[in-house]
Amino acid sequence: MSLSFPPAVEALRISARDNPLLQRIRKLLADPGGYRKAGQVWLEGDHLVSAALARGWMLEALVMTDAAWTARADWQAWAGQARRTALVSAELFRGLCSLESPVQVGALVSLPQAPVIQPGVFTVVLDRLQDAGNVGSILRSSAAFGARQVLALKGTAALWSPKVLRAGMGAHFGLSLVEALSADDLAALDVPLLATSSHAGRVLGQGALPWPCAWVLGHEGQGVSAALMERCAHTVSIPQPGGEESLNVGAAAAICLFASATGAQSAPAG
Amino acid sequence: MSLSFPPAVEALRISARDNPLLQRIRKLLADPGGYRKAGQVWLEGDHLVSAALARGWMLEALVMTDAAWTARADWQAWAGQARRTALVSAELFRGLCSLESPVQVGALVSLPQAPVIQPGVFTVVLDRLQDAGNVGSILRSSAAFGARQVLALKGTAALWSPKVLRAGMGAHFGLSLVEALSADDLAALDVPLLATSSHAGRVLGQGALPWPCAWVLGHEGQGVSAALMERCAHTVSIPQPGGEESLNVGAAAAICLFASATGAQSAPAG
Repeated sequence: MSLSFPPAVEALRISARDNPLLQRIRKLLADPGGYRKAGQVWLEGDHLVSAALARGWMLEALVMTDAAWTARADWQAWAGQARRTALVSAELFRGLCSLESPVQVGALVSLPQAPVIQPGVFTVVLDRLQDAGNVGSILRSSAAFGARQVLALKGTAALWSPKVLRAGMGAHFGLSLVEALSADDLAALDVPLLATSSHAGRVLGQGALPWPCAWVLGHEGQGVSAALMERCAHTVSIPQPGGEESLNVGAAAAICLFASATGAQSAPAG
Repeated sequence: MSLSFPPAVEALRISARDNPLLQRIRKLLADPGGYRKAGQVWLEGDHLVSAALARGWMLEALVMTDAAWTARADWQAWAGQARRTALVSAELFRGLCSLESPVQVGALVSLPQAPVIQPGVFTVVLDRLQDAGNVGSILRSSAAFGARQVLALKGTAALWSPKVLRAGMGAHFGLSLVEALSADDLAALDVPLLATSSHAGRVLGQGALPWPCAWVLGHEGQGVSAALMERCAHTVSIPQPGGEESLNVGAAAAICLFASATGAQSAPAG
């Protein structure tokens, strides 16, 4: 189906498959870690685009189908926060989608250049986490409980990959994300590191936690590395009345961040 | 590679691809919900098999590779808790694996017949959850925090599917799991139903929660259905100092179950 538009809108149309903008997006889609080199990320679907805009991000390019432009005045309005807007056919747009469920809008955004570790703020550290769903869940919990930054050590899943973006549901845009760090880099944090351990003497929920702090969350199978564990000022155990079952790392993270965030409000511990 | 064994062990060997036991396992692998009709589940890998044994489950059949039988005396010992043990070649075993990372041992177990809702116990209710990783994470949190049963309403991902089993990391074997329920069936629970809601007046962590109770967790996109929400005695909000971000349902579940389990210890509320 071909729609006709006034000339000013018609000028936004891209009909060539090998258009440089579309090629750039396809290149990002082909390599989940490619954003690191490109410095740009492709956001699929209205949820992520609106989450980025709500946090004040500028869109490098807003891309949607002809049909979406016609049907969605709210998406049209996003063009005001985009350096460039492009309309493409439904068929061309399908080539820009990695998701199973097709979407009709997306945006290219530039990532902050060389983000740095902020000292003295509530922080989450990811030590080689592998599962995109877990990482996305932890980013959501981090944003919800007021962490300012998430620091990923080398070996952690790419934070801005399409799968983590999807699982993060927009949490990415309210956090400062720093990747590919070494354990030594964490010295710049200047807050105590905390980790969970099933044999820790200190029990979560009994006694105040240091604030601000950085929660360290480890690899799904191996946990926090021994070297990083040594740098932790405190280890705490999560009481488990049901027995010795292990928790999913995203579940453990949620409990720890909730405890810190709510404990900090009611009883700041210096 | 062919190993030679004493006659008593040699008798355990299956070399025919169309052996009825292997066919039964392959049939289960081909249909993630097929266990409902078969009444049996195929457990892949030593972690799940040992988790089942640790909870006292009998194995209908223990299957491992010739090489594993030779190398792993600990797995050999499991034969004492199996009605039948079978050794197969590495090649035949590969046909019994749905996992990307190959394993060398598995077991067939029979599920409890027609499990029923237990009244008056700490319970988790799943309302049409879709994601296997989320369901597995919630089963782990349920077991860790002492829930006795997990009840899945119609439309929830199959609890004993290979993906949920993998994500559950053995939690399945310590819980009573009842599937394909309707909202009306929950009347048999005889404990108050609790759900989270961002516009609830009651805040989690402030004031005691009813005990025992049943936490209701809803569909990833749609949340708890309106009909089920009406049956909830209480809704609580999870305080989120970081703003209006939403939590992953597995993360929210972990926080709620932790709050109930630890609150119940320190201040039982009837």
